[in-house]
Amino acid sequence: MSAPTLDVDPWHVREPHVDTGTLDVAESLFSLSNGYLGIRGTLDEVEPFGMRGTYLSGVYETHPLSYPEGGYGQPGEGQALLTVTDGTPLRLLVDGIPLDVREVRPEVHERTLDLRAGTLDRRVRWTTPRGTTVEVSSRRLVSLAERSICAVRYEVRALDGPAHVVVRSEVASGAVTPTGVDNDDPRVKDVLDNAFEPMVHACAPTGGTLASRTRRSGITVAAAVDHVVDGGRVSSDADEHRVVTVVAADLAAGGALGITKVVAHTWSLDAWAGSLVGQASAAVASALDLGWEGLLAAQRDVLDEFWATADVEVDGDPELQQALRYSVFQLFCSAACISGAPVGAKGLTGMGYSGHTFWDVEGFVLPALTLLRPDTAARLLRWRAETIGSARERARTLGRAGAAFAWRTISGPEVSAYWPASTAAMHVNADIARAFWLYQNATGEDLDDVGGLPVLVETARLWMSLGHEDAAGAWHLFGMTGPDEYTGVVDDNVFTNLMARANLRRAADACRRHEARAADLGVDHTETAAWRSAAAAVHVPWDEGLRVHPMNANFTAYEEWPFEEQRDAYPVQEHQHYATFYRRQVLKQADLVQALWWCRDEFTDEEVARDLEYYEARTVRDSSLSAAVQAVVCAQAQHPDLALRYLRECALVDLRDVQEGTAQGLHMASVAGAWLALAAGLGGLREDHEDLEIAPCSRRRSPAPPTTSPGAVRCCASRRPRRAPRSRWCAARGR
Amino acid sequence: MSAPTLDVDPWHVREPHVDTGTLDVAESLFSLSNGYLGIRGTLDEVEPFGMRGTYLSGVYETHPLSYPEGGYGQPGEGQALLTVTDGTPLRLLVDGIPLDVREVRPEVHERTLDLRAGTLDRRVRWTTPRGTTVEVSSRRLVSLAERSICAVRYEVRALDGPAHVVVRSEVASGAVTPTGVDNDDPRVKDVLDNAFEPMVHACAPTGGTLASRTRRSGITVAAAVDHVVDGGRVSSDADEHRVVTVVAADLAAGGALGITKVVAHTWSLDAWAGSLVGQASAAVASALDLGWEGLLAAQRDVLDEFWATADVEVDGDPELQQALRYSVFQLFCSAACISGAPVGAKGLTGMGYSGHTFWDVEGFVLPALTLLRPDTAARLLRWRAETIGSARERARTLGRAGAAFAWRTISGPEVSAYWPASTAAMHVNADIARAFWLYQNATGEDLDDVGGLPVLVETARLWMSLGHEDAAGAWHLFGMTGPDEYTGVVDDNVFTNLMARANLRRAADACRRHEARAADLGVDHTETAAWRSAAAAVHVPWDEGLRVHPMNANFTAYEEWPFEEQRDAYPVQEHQHYATFYRRQVLKQADLVQALWWCRDEFTDEEVARDLEYYEARTVRDSSLSAAVQAVVCAQAQHPDLALRYLRECALVDLRDVQEGTAQGLHMASVAGAWLALAAGLGGLREDHEDLEIAPCSRRRSPAPPTTSPGAVRCCASRRPRRAPRSRWCAARGR
Repeated sequence: MSAPTLDVDPWHVREPHVDTGTLDVAESLFSLSNGYLGIRGTLDEVEPFGMRGTYLSGVYETHPLSYPEGGYGQPGEGQALLTVTDGTPLRLLVDGIPLDVREVRPEVHERTLDLRAGTLDRRVRWTTPRGTTVEVSSRRLVSLAERSICAVRYEVRALDGPAHVVVRSEVASGAVTPTGVDNDDPRVKDVLDNAFEPMVHACAPTGGTLASRTRRSGITVAAAVDHVVDGGRVSSDADEHRVVTVVAADLAAGGALGITKVVAHTWSLDAWAGSLVGQASAAVASALDLGWEGLLAAQRDVLDEFWATADVEVDGDPELQQALRYSVFQLFCSAACISGAPVGAKGLTGMGYSGHTFWDVEGFVLPALTLLRPDTAARLLRWRAETIGSARERARTLGRAGAAFAWRTISGPEVSAYWPASTAAMHVNADIARAFWLYQNATGEDLDDVGGLPVLVETARLWMSLGHEDAAGAWHLFGMTGPDEYTGVVDDNVFTNLMARANLRRAADACRRHEARAADLGVDHTETAAWRSAAAAVHVPWDEGLRVHPMNANFTAYEEWPFEEQRDAYPVQEHQHYATFYRRQVLKQADLVQALWWCRDEFTDEEVARDLEYYEARTVRDSSLSAAVQAVVCAQAQHPDLALRYLRECALVDLRDVQEGTAQGLHMASVAGAWLALAAGLGGLREDHEDLEIAPCSRRRSPAPPTTSPGAVRCCASRRPRRAPRSRWCAARGR
Repeated sequence: MSAPTLDVDPWHVREPHVDTGTLDVAESLFSLSNGYLGIRGTLDEVEPFGMRGTYLSGVYETHPLSYPEGGYGQPGEGQALLTVTDGTPLRLLVDGIPLDVREVRPEVHERTLDLRAGTLDRRVRWTTPRGTTVEVSSRRLVSLAERSICAVRYEVRALDGPAHVVVRSEVASGAVTPTGVDNDDPRVKDVLDNAFEPMVHACAPTGGTLASRTRRSGITVAAAVDHVVDGGRVSSDADEHRVVTVVAADLAAGGALGITKVVAHTWSLDAWAGSLVGQASAAVASALDLGWEGLLAAQRDVLDEFWATADVEVDGDPELQQALRYSVFQLFCSAACISGAPVGAKGLTGMGYSGHTFWDVEGFVLPALTLLRPDTAARLLRWRAETIGSARERARTLGRAGAAFAWRTISGPEVSAYWPASTAAMHVNADIARAFWLYQNATGEDLDDVGGLPVLVETARLWMSLGHEDAAGAWHLFGMTGPDEYTGVVDDNVFTNLMARANLRRAADACRRHEARAADLGVDHTETAAWRSAAAAVHVPWDEGLRVHPMNANFTAYEEWPFEEQRDAYPVQEHQHYATFYRRQVLKQADLVQALWWCRDEFTDEEVARDLEYYEARTVRDSSLSAAVQAVVCAQAQHPDLALRYLRECALVDLRDVQEGTAQGLHMASVAGAWLALAAGLGGLREDHEDLEIAPCSRRRSPAPPTTSPGAVRCCASRRPRRAPRSRWCAARGR
């Protein structure tokens, strides 16, 4: 477990002592973001750090994707989120000694994320080798009111004697941290490490400006910085890579130096560098006009308004209380000011997955935001709708009609390089379409107000060209990969088939409501009739012997996974070859079980109960996407204790680094999933019909499962001893 | 069509005029090889050329294989055949004018491969811009008697006046030609272009020596050269990259200069460079001791002995007569002196497929050689048996028992970077095992004399760990890819299942014959009983409605391929995505049809007839591996006319560049397949039972097919208008 030790508190996430072994995880947890701008929770003095990072949503560079054995239609170009100019550094020297927690162990080092104030506070007390004790306090925010702004109030106090204090404040561009891209083609590193070409820089006594442009994607970024200093001498200098402001003071015992640092970031695909610098400078002026207290007040106002409708109260479980509020806070911050860009799988909290967005943003983040912040959800939906050009082009490349949305992307085009888990995972198109229809159901707004009609029409067309009828009239989808990434390229994946059915029907419904708009898209009654007819004929595999749904044709005939032999070999994908597990009864994550939630009308209660038991025993949950789904379906199947356990796991995924991936950024789908596990799980909230439904799950003892599957026994007995047993289902039954 | 125009002649392949547009194909066709050493048919004066190349079987370099999205067990290192020191150059200047066919069109330029003499002869007459007419004749051989030797007799005669003649003879090392590796990772090019580190060089008046070592694979190569000159002045010079010998003469009208150039190549994984140079020099001395006429005589002796038993006579079809003799010649030359190395898919005739060997060498080349040259076949089988260590390691990586042989390799380890077409194609293991049992059947020798017992035992163990029994006791193989590369990762591929059955039974038989040896390998009666039991339970899918075998579970339910829409879009894999065709009824090459041949006892005559018709209509034959199989099975199904057409296509694949891949080297599987198409096809030769069988197919009219499939109509109507209709089956029926 590499997570930092944190205090449990209903409205704060507090790290009482710094631990250099968990800095990278803490940086993710203490990330501040507003969806436009995100900064990782690095120390003010930069070193030591795990991964530095300031990110602007939508600012990426392209890089070559080359294949040792390629094939037609494999994307030739990748995209990676970039670290932009880093405005956080405030390097402190006291009597010539730098503050570095590795060198001098501070007596006090406390960091606190305040979920109501929207600030990251730090308090340090340290004694220099010469015996001077100083107290440093900093408060950092990424403004939820002024999207370009991050600001820091930094104070140094000499406690017990005079001290010569120097603070070097930097705004630094260029490659400040490893790219983190999982690609050892040296060209990729070259491209990403040298992504920016400096354009202009300027300097004033208390700050300056910088602008640069990406060499391949042609995105210009600018930053401006200014400082308000209380009790010190200030000077600044700038070159093409940085603006450096030095503040110096001679403090008497009890004396203090205070600095307010305001940094603004802007970007554009078409604006001229000088103009962007002007925008950044104006943003700094606006923030300085508000002043530090004004920025704090505005931050609190936004959050007060948010919490007034979005708060979650949990009795009797302070750890869950904290984790849920933390999740809701980070969910809100991930998208509050977003515009014309997607939420990445890690939000703006790290470089994991190269900053790409995936279907789980539409699957989890968007439905949660739709209920909590419909205006934000609308902006995200609009972004996706605007990528339809890329999606149409991808469908053409694949020889299909309609639009095939990207498995992973930043700006729209498909950039996934492993097709069995991406191009074959056509369900993403229905997942994306679903976010639009849920938005319509939940908000009462029309889905076409956010660009939904073309999305539904073109995904319906895609499904029609992917599926075919057999001689008996049943409609099939062959060669698909469902949500579970341990089973690939299969026929009639139930989740995919049912989501395609829903997609076809919702598209036909939407066209009925918008006849003229639909006609503009070339849709006529014959076409929608064909959609409905295919939807009605969708084949759903069923195993009559086991009385469960095989998650795809033939799945229940696959060999069982040898759980006993695989004791510590998790995650499976890092210890076994695709060829080894693609045709075994082992799941990375919920797949059929996700259909039990998202396509609930297709299953009887008995089917839900039996299917859930069957797949619980075979799901190793190497994916963070699973717990929320399992929580919801356990509640749906009247297992509230299990639902609660999964909910806790989901809510704590980052605070406890359960998946050991938090160092690379927060798991945004789990962040949203935690709230969904509560609202849709224990709360029984459903927004897939015309009217919202709430059916809270009571905490009575869950019914005993009807049968005992050998897989269930196996998976509890042996898997992952270093962590909790993988299947909470099994654990709860003492097996 | 990019093939050169060639004269039809029963014992010669003659190019009457040089065509600079087809040089690369001609270089492959005029390749000379003895299996140890191969040289492409470049012009003596080097320029112009398509691809220069001198190859030593087993001399390769490793290079990084990096994946944009990798996975556990993907090979991290590739291998590529290297071009070694090129000893062919003889650059001619007459009165200071270089012979270059691009500059001065020769009056005569004729090249002839003599299939009985084993020489490539060239005759050129040209007139320099100054009006001097000279005749150049060269005769080149790669010795079938002295494996290290290539030699050239080069003569220049001044016909109509005096001439100052200079010949610069080179032996040049280093990157003389592009690598041809289909990998745009710049590290791969860097590695392969700089594969050799020079070690030693030396010079004598009439020649010299060179040695260098590969930087990564650690293979040392050496070359020695000497010249015997009639009527000229000689001097030589050497540096670390080349030995250059200059021969000059002042010819009177009618006078001639003659040069015999002898080059020897040697390589070793462990010998010291100086020692290898010594071996090469000794080989040159041996060749010089034989003299040019002695080398020619030895060459003819070897070929006389070969043709005495291997000749193929065809009446009434001179084109086929030539093509079959050419195929048999190249088949023999590809392996005559091979030792401790495999035959690559392109032999030593080009850089195609990076020089890798594939299952089709065991599938086609080895069975043909077993019947024609059992001693050569034995050496190839021993090489494969010696790679069992790599195969065992690969099986461990895949979490399986036994040994999993490489889909593509030079020295044993798997180097394929696209697993659905390689790691999933487990049939290669049975194909390899089959080569051992056919050897035993055909020669009467025991398969364990060539290392076959461990191969059979370990492949049987692999199958046992890949397959599993269902509740009803049927034995399945899921997630496999059969020979057809347009259908991937499927369940119960019939070819794979039946080959696994044969493999299990042959392994059990072999263990019964070698109880003690089998016991050393840990085999007991319980294990072999389990093999036989699994073999008996092998599931074979059957479509009762269509009364054909689906080539894998569910295949006949796949959507049909839209042949009309794909008019010129061949090969399919270059115009469509895997995700588009993996689950359609379109085949690159024979798959189920190959089972009709290799597993003939499993099918009734009626099944053969119906299955053949079904798959003929769906096979686009984008692979050169298909025609031979189709020829054999058409003969088996009593369609001799069709069998003959496929046989011709197979035999002419390189001479007519049918697949447009000959520039990269000859298609060795087709070279062998042509002979098999004749012997096993029209000849009805079968060596899979205890006794050899011959059942020539009579040329009576083939029976009408029982039904007309719509697919068959389609494929003839529309596919590949620029070539012959893809399915000769359809063409023959006038559809």
